[in-house]
Amino acid sequence: MSPFRATAPLKEWEHFEFTVADGVATVTLDRPEKLNALTFEVYADLRDLIIELPQHDDVRVLVITGRGRGFCSGGDVEEIIGELQKFETAELLEFTRMTGAVVKALRECPLPVIAAVNGVAAGAGSVIALASDFRLLAKSAKFAFLFTKVGLAGADMGSAYLLPRLVGLGRATELLILGDKVSAERASEIGLASQVVDDSELPAAASALARRLADGPALAYATTKVLLTRELDMDLGSAIELEAITQALLMTAKDHKEFYAAWTAGREPRWTGR
Amino acid sequence: MSPFRATAPLKEWEHFEFTVADGVATVTLDRPEKLNALTFEVYADLRDLIIELPQHDDVRVLVITGRGRGFCSGGDVEEIIGELQKFETAELLEFTRMTGAVVKALRECPLPVIAAVNGVAAGAGSVIALASDFRLLAKSAKFAFLFTKVGLAGADMGSAYLLPRLVGLGRATELLILGDKVSAERASEIGLASQVVDDSELPAAASALARRLADGPALAYATTKVLLTRELDMDLGSAIELEAITQALLMTAKDHKEFYAAWTAGREPRWTGR
Amino acid sequence: MSPFRATAPLKEWEHFEFTVADGVATVTLDRPEKLNALTFEVYADLRDLIIELPQHDDVRVLVITGRGRGFCSGGDVEEIIGELQKFETAELLEFTRMTGAVVKALRECPLPVIAAVNGVAAGAGSVIALASDFRLLAKSAKFAFLFTKVGLAGADMGSAYLLPRLVGLGRATELLILGDKVSAERASEIGLASQVVDDSELPAAASALARRLADGPALAYATTKVLLTRELDMDLGSAIELEAITQALLMTAKDHKEFYAAWTAGREPRWTGR
Repeated sequence: MSPFRATAPLKEWEHFEFTVADGVATVTLDRPEKLNALTFEVYADLRDLIIELPQHDDVRVLVITGRGRGFCSGGDVEEIIGELQKFETAELLEFTRMTGAVVKALRECPLPVIAAVNGVAAGAGSVIALASDFRLLAKSAKFAFLFTKVGLAGADMGSAYLLPRLVGLGRATELLILGDKVSAERASEIGLASQVVDDSELPAAASALARRLADGPALAYATTKVLLTRELDMDLGSAIELEAITQALLMTAKDHKEFYAAWTAGREPRWTGR
Repeated sequence: MSPFRATAPLKEWEHFEFTVADGVATVTLDRPEKLNALTFEVYADLRDLIIELPQHDDVRVLVITGRGRGFCSGGDVEEIIGELQKFETAELLEFTRMTGAVVKALRECPLPVIAAVNGVAAGAGSVIALASDFRLLAKSAKFAFLFTKVGLAGADMGSAYLLPRLVGLGRATELLILGDKVSAERASEIGLASQVVDDSELPAAASALARRLADGPALAYATTKVLLTRELDMDLGSAIELEAITQALLMTAKDHKEFYAAWTAGREPRWTGR
Repeated sequence: MSPFRATAPLKEWEHFEFTVADGVATVTLDRPEKLNALTFEVYADLRDLIIELPQHDDVRVLVITGRGRGFCSGGDVEEIIGELQKFETAELLEFTRMTGAVVKALRECPLPVIAAVNGVAAGAGSVIALASDFRLLAKSAKFAFLFTKVGLAGADMGSAYLLPRLVGLGRATELLILGDKVSAERASEIGLASQVVDDSELPAAASALARRLADGPALAYATTKVLLTRELDMDLGSAIELEAITQALLMTAKDHKEFYAAWTAGREPRWTGR
């Protein structure tokens, strides 16, 4: 066990369901009667969990999904928007920084993150899915970046940074300014969905992808994700240098050596993720 | 009336038709016999108008369209390219900076801009549409980034910055190096058109979208646009911080409070755009 | 002959076939029995050739293709991966920097580069195609960014910088983390292929495009490419200024004057590429 890994076991979380099994951590948003609308507590716990998760040796991939008909309908109108009306400046900023911190943690997390979008992903819910690495959508799922419909900026939690980098500036402008619904089929056409499956097949599809990621060369996957995140903000020459240094490092790691040993022996590699 | 708004009324403009009605400003390029080819004067007036427009309280959205068969065929061959042959270095640079300033003004303008592309958008005309926020295309409209066909760089007025951020580097390379025509259908497929409608329906479609933007939460729309523009040039962490601060500000504004009041009362919000 | 051009003639190259005819340079990867897997020598020679090529007056465009069934299957497992197992840190880094230098040279080369992808483009082969300006694909060609399948980062030779800028972050994440095959049809849908043609028509299609680029306004094409490369790393205002200065320069060049003369005379322009 590495001395750099967390020594305390993963906490229990009160405001969503959280499980870890065979390298796969799963967050299930769990207020189905509200389409899993977020509360202050859910935001804070998501932030803390996602920051902490990579320190734990037994987790290789994170799946985020929702219980019931919805994935996540965004900030609860009563429990969040209602409360915001009473806040002072400093409290408002503390709130918006907390929500942004969830997205920052998702993008900087070295684990691949799968959003298994089982139903509507609206407002903050749509940005949580957007900040994930894979978006598996149930056929009936929808995105709605509906911030302007509540009188707020379509730029929320990093959406105006991320969305143009996924679907292009023209489409992002349309989606963020108008806030209209996007069907799963349309999301797939424009590069916002990785895969669309029948509603009943979503859990199996998410499990299969999570399994593959957890059983594969996890260090290679994690490194790819981290560099994808960072190189959005780098110039060509620096990015190529970063990749050269990183790849030289990975050439010294166990999984690359295992690939060559397996290939020489004519067998499948046994990845350790190291 | 805010003391920060322009006190003089909007000027009349000589080199294109300009109207303001119910919050919607409309520029109609008006040299139909030349497919609305640009002259030096049209460029200069477009630059000045777009810089000035946001200072006027009665404008919420800008529509740019063309009279007749074309949207805008770019710089007039006789009146611009012919004149350029006689220019000295400093004059050439003054000209190219003026054309670039039109695009800079369009992108930095806090009002949403709709290009209602009624026919061919070529050369500078294609970049004006590209720099708009929404591109509604008549079915028969075409784009042509035809700069190389006159022996110039396909990088003109910011096209080599903007186009890859809308359609990806591969497609932008093809369009800007070769300068070939792009049909409305193809523009829609690659994210260069927001919407394609029958030719006869374009004015109504542009009006409807302009109406929606003018009647909606205009400060939220404007803020979304400004952040989309700025965050193309920002890193992830800074973008998330900017969004957190901006959203905290918008939470103190009238329209967000109105949303909550309307929701509580079970009625539609009455947006003031403030 | 310009005193800034190379005075020595282009070298012969041992590790691939290299020809120049009528302004078109062609590299044909030439280990068909290995699907043109790369060796250390091929990498080094590609880097040196691409850096040197623009100094030669008689070359206007570069075509890269492969002999036989494959385009390029990436680093040879025996001759490269096998050798890497024995390397020390400094040697590993020298190797990865050399591979990155090929991509840097391709992107910074002022000549347009056409990848005529005649079959599988895997690993380093997929990144060489990715770093080209045009990707013409045979119908049976496939991409495979398969780095994670050998236990390495999907971020290799700049792939994690380039791919999101062509196909968006979501699709790039999927392709680079999973490393699965991408068909020519799918590559076309997502903006990774410029054109897909029947296998038997690929040489003719590549020739036709190369001919067009070599016979056209080459300085305009080259400038467009250079600015596309640079403006990925620039902010809006700087990009517009760069384009203004560049375009003013090109307005003084021969081909732009030739366009106007030809237009006035009612004839086709005779481009000199200057």
